[in-house]
Amino acid sequence: MERPRNVRITFEPYGKRVEVERGITIFEAVTKAGLAIRSECGGLGTCGKCKVRIKDPMSVSEITKVERNILSPEELRGGLRLACQACVLDDCMVYVPPESRIGERKILEVGFEQEVPLEPAVRKIHLMIPKPSLNDVRADYERMIDTLSRILEVRGWQGEKFDEMRISRELLANTPRILREAEWDVTVVLRDEEILEIERGNTEGENYGLAIDIGTSKIVVYLVNFNEGNVIGVSSIENPQLMFGEDIMSRLTFAMRSHENLSLLNKVLVNGINATIGEIALKSGVNRDNIYEAVVVGNTAMHHLFLGIEIKHLALSPYVPAVRDLLSVKAQEADLKINKRGYVITLPIIGGFVGADGVADLLATGLHKSNEFSMLLDIGTNTEVFLGNKNEILACSAASGPAFEGGHIKFGMKAVAGAIERVFIEPETYEVKYKTVRGEKPVGLCGSAVIDVVAGLLRSGLIDVHGRIREKPEVSRIRKVGNEVEFVVAWREETGIDEDITVTQRDVREIQLAKAAIYTAQSILMKRKGIKPEDIKKIFIAGAFGSEISVKNAIFIGLLPEVPEERVKFVGNTAIAGAKMALISKKVRKESREVQKLVNYVELSLDPSFQKEFINATELPHRDLDRFPKVKDYLTKVRN
Amino acid sequence: MERPRNVRITFEPYGKRVEVERGITIFEAVTKAGLAIRSECGGLGTCGKCKVRIKDPMSVSEITKVERNILSPEELRGGLRLACQACVLDDCMVYVPPESRIGERKILEVGFEQEVPLEPAVRKIHLMIPKPSLNDVRADYERMIDTLSRILEVRGWQGEKFDEMRISRELLANTPRILREAEWDVTVVLRDEEILEIERGNTEGENYGLAIDIGTSKIVVYLVNFNEGNVIGVSSIENPQLMFGEDIMSRLTFAMRSHENLSLLNKVLVNGINATIGEIALKSGVNRDNIYEAVVVGNTAMHHLFLGIEIKHLALSPYVPAVRDLLSVKAQEADLKINKRGYVITLPIIGGFVGADGVADLLATGLHKSNEFSMLLDIGTNTEVFLGNKNEILACSAASGPAFEGGHIKFGMKAVAGAIERVFIEPETYEVKYKTVRGEKPVGLCGSAVIDVVAGLLRSGLIDVHGRIREKPEVSRIRKVGNEVEFVVAWREETGIDEDITVTQRDVREIQLAKAAIYTAQSILMKRKGIKPEDIKKIFIAGAFGSEISVKNAIFIGLLPEVPEERVKFVGNTAIAGAKMALISKKVRKESREVQKLVNYVELSLDPSFQKEFINATELPHRDLDRFPKVKDYLTKVRN
Repeated sequence: MERPRNVRITFEPYGKRVEVERGITIFEAVTKAGLAIRSECGGLGTCGKCKVRIKDPMSVSEITKVERNILSPEELRGGLRLACQACVLDDCMVYVPPESRIGERKILEVGFEQEVPLEPAVRKIHLMIPKPSLNDVRADYERMIDTLSRILEVRGWQGEKFDEMRISRELLANTPRILREAEWDVTVVLRDEEILEIERGNTEGENYGLAIDIGTSKIVVYLVNFNEGNVIGVSSIENPQLMFGEDIMSRLTFAMRSHENLSLLNKVLVNGINATIGEIALKSGVNRDNIYEAVVVGNTAMHHLFLGIEIKHLALSPYVPAVRDLLSVKAQEADLKINKRGYVITLPIIGGFVGADGVADLLATGLHKSNEFSMLLDIGTNTEVFLGNKNEILACSAASGPAFEGGHIKFGMKAVAGAIERVFIEPETYEVKYKTVRGEKPVGLCGSAVIDVVAGLLRSGLIDVHGRIREKPEVSRIRKVGNEVEFVVAWREETGIDEDITVTQRDVREIQLAKAAIYTAQSILMKRKGIKPEDIKKIFIAGAFGSEISVKNAIFIGLLPEVPEERVKFVGNTAIAGAKMALISKKVRKESREVQKLVNYVELSLDPSFQKEFINATELPHRDLDRFPKVKDYLTKVRN
Repeated sequence: MERPRNVRITFEPYGKRVEVERGITIFEAVTKAGLAIRSECGGLGTCGKCKVRIKDPMSVSEITKVERNILSPEELRGGLRLACQACVLDDCMVYVPPESRIGERKILEVGFEQEVPLEPAVRKIHLMIPKPSLNDVRADYERMIDTLSRILEVRGWQGEKFDEMRISRELLANTPRILREAEWDVTVVLRDEEILEIERGNTEGENYGLAIDIGTSKIVVYLVNFNEGNVIGVSSIENPQLMFGEDIMSRLTFAMRSHENLSLLNKVLVNGINATIGEIALKSGVNRDNIYEAVVVGNTAMHHLFLGIEIKHLALSPYVPAVRDLLSVKAQEADLKINKRGYVITLPIIGGFVGADGVADLLATGLHKSNEFSMLLDIGTNTEVFLGNKNEILACSAASGPAFEGGHIKFGMKAVAGAIERVFIEPETYEVKYKTVRGEKPVGLCGSAVIDVVAGLLRSGLIDVHGRIREKPEVSRIRKVGNEVEFVVAWREETGIDEDITVTQRDVREIQLAKAAIYTAQSILMKRKGIKPEDIKKIFIAGAFGSEISVKNAIFIGLLPEVPEERVKFVGNTAIAGAKMALISKKVRKESREVQKLVNYVELSLDPSFQKEFINATELPHRDLDRFPKVKDYLTKVRN
């Protein structure tokens, strides 16, 4: 049997060589070479996007009428051809110019997050659809799908199940009109197998998504460009549910009372998010209709309240969530104001109050892939603690209160301009040095400063291990106002508020309770795992809380176990970073479900040692000083 | 290596023997044997449904506490055990009593349709879900899915993708409440991978669907029991769109004028169907909420109008439908009043006006599976004609008008009580015999009677081949009223309407036009296929038109080609039968898409011979008498 004559083609700049049957088009040869070339018509000869340069004009077939219509005389003289028109006659070299190349998939890294391939669920594909005629009476929808399939094949997106392509009745009902008004030049928005939208002209450039982190106190929204995978806008607001209570439990109690209350909590939350989306879209010059997907994370209560799911049983023993799995919901069903056919994805929940934000934290830090033991603390009004490695992760949630975010602290405030963020108390002279955000006149204290003050007082012997401030006549900064003892951090004349800025005895108590809650969580997880602080190779600290806290002081007051300081890494808002990863990568979405399965939730309150451990942890740094040998050394020296 | 000790179990009454590892439960062994056993808890020991009888009590493990709680002392004495509790210790014989068996899938045959396995997309599964406790804090949804998975496995429904189970946000939001109100005893309604509903208690028995045939003139609805696959209620109404025009084209013209008009046509149609559903549900004592799916068929125009899809381009050359593919739409989106989370499926469309009803016709007759050439006529206001075999089918649509359904005929009526359905004219004496529906006094003529009259007049030489009624003095039944000649079928004194019932010259013309349209369609398809009437082994006649028409007369006037009479088979409403097949069988739904691909649509008006062929076919039986050799013989004899 005679084999058909084959020819060899080399594609530059790829340096890719392929042997193909003589007579096929270069367009077909590109596909056989496993390369991709730009095309909007899928090789029909109508779009003119698949320009290539042929080294030897004699190695391919003659210039066609189509090419004479589409290419300029200069282009033809320069050896340019349309890949879909030129047939290969002999061995040849084909150069694919930059304008005809399809960008390779990009690898991203933004902030502290894991690198993930850019593979969003939502894709936009520009189509030039051949018009119907008496000789081509395919139905409008099939006509569109046919063109779409060709393009996807050309772009190497195989394995699509076109048989299972879905479209809503309402969009389908309008398809004939849209296609004709656009003169068959449209961009299809595809989410997996569903056609979300048919847009007029080429709108491939306008493809956006949202990552949304619903914290108990704060909501953060990222606007992400799906074409590049980068964040193009950030916005945040206070959680408007705050008016129904600062902590989760008081909101759940309110929601439990009636269906109207639940519905109200849902509405204020969603309205707040919608306002933020509006703002970020306006700022970034993006049309809401071009936002097709949102990935939402938050603790279990926020997750349920966002979706309007009943939370009665979450608030009562045995604290059962309604659902833990990753959910994909129509944006309209969740009342989120993005493209009306868009989708909202909520990442899986771990258990108890440890929600989708926890899964996002793990995704962003990669803790679940590590061989070594790592710990992750997401510090907020509720603090989530994770401990483990790629084999198993334990998780729990501690009600740490808002002290570290400046809440319940007399002069507490967020880390905005004028907030004191670092404080140093000279142990001998009790002199105070401080630093404010942006160097402005001090107006209050943020969480990191309060930690510094407590540590500084302890180091100076001005408070005892029980946290009681010691009044000393030689220390003018310590004074009693009414029944309350307080320490003056900044004198009225230095401040911008015409008042002394102080840390009160009550503030110290708040910090003690907060750090005790967080330490107890860490301690019980270590006990369950049977490991000691030195076994923990890395401690990730996530949360708005920020990178400004002093690790040394955090250990000194017993907020963190005593580990070498360099093992502690501040990772910022990993919840939103993880949400963003899941937004731009279908692989990460899948991974999120595996992460969930890896994590075992520990209900702290059921641990028999919880009460005792918590009480002991309220001391500074801890009643059992042997857990903090270096601090013990220091304190012993000071006392002697 | 030592193999683990195996034991042999024989399951009766199946006579199935299986070798399994010693120590496993009988429940597990049942699965290994490829058998199925009833269970609602999936082997948890809570439902008590998996009772079996063990021949030798010593061959299995001891009676457990669970069994003592669930089984009565009599049952225990009788050798009954729970399959999930008893472990196999030695070779044994296990009898599965009838109450523990799961019914095998049923094979059905109702009316003229193909036998299909009962495999609906909607299934109901009764679950007894273990309650949450401090030791079992699975989320409500996962808890339910876990129990569901167990049951489906036990019932042998493997290959379900539980990972991809879907549920609407709104149902999920209510899941915690529903589960607790039902005390964890619920029935889940599953449609493929979507949970449509969670119902209180065991409602497996209440699982219904609808087959709906939207004809241009008539809408037929079947209510089908998914558990048995049988039709439990039938209802039909006139298509309420009739008020906007009798034929498709006038409705399309109306709909094209404005979006409001389109929307109006959609609304009256859907309202009409909803009223019919209400009536049939009431009659059958079925709750609408227990109807979870509807399969809808109709011609392309009805299909588009039902879904509210723009039809402007369907009405104008090149007559392009918006979509041809099978569609699955939420019932709510289509405004159909069944379960609020139910679905509507429309079968695929073939092309031009040959719609989903055509696909259903083919499914019901099985024409697409036959080796021999068959023809299928679905006679109505529009008549669809199919010709082909398993390799290829040609299809076309002819605007035949309503004459055969009694429309545009002076005394025309539907085949209801009092309608003359058969007429015999004695060729020598011109005496008339007739038969009415239910034997009541005649009040009008239905289509079959008009055919009989035209054939009778032709046979008696009372009309010529052009259809002109010959006035003869000796024939008192022929008379002239004004300008119109007419033939009296029944005298006033015989009738129930105090009037002579006649067939007018104009009626004969209507019949000629109608039969010419239908014959032309058949003739052009035969020409395209290159076959002669004798090659056609079967002619299926579908449509409300009914089995009462005389094949002999239909051939005599040239409505059908001259084939041996026994080759003609009346198959009734195959559109609804095919819809019903697709309703109860997922396999048939898949098949419907294959059928669609097999059919090539022929646009009659584009055929160059169409005009001439149509004019020739208006003669009785046809200008080219050689096409009807037997009729020619007869007529030649009569004339001589």
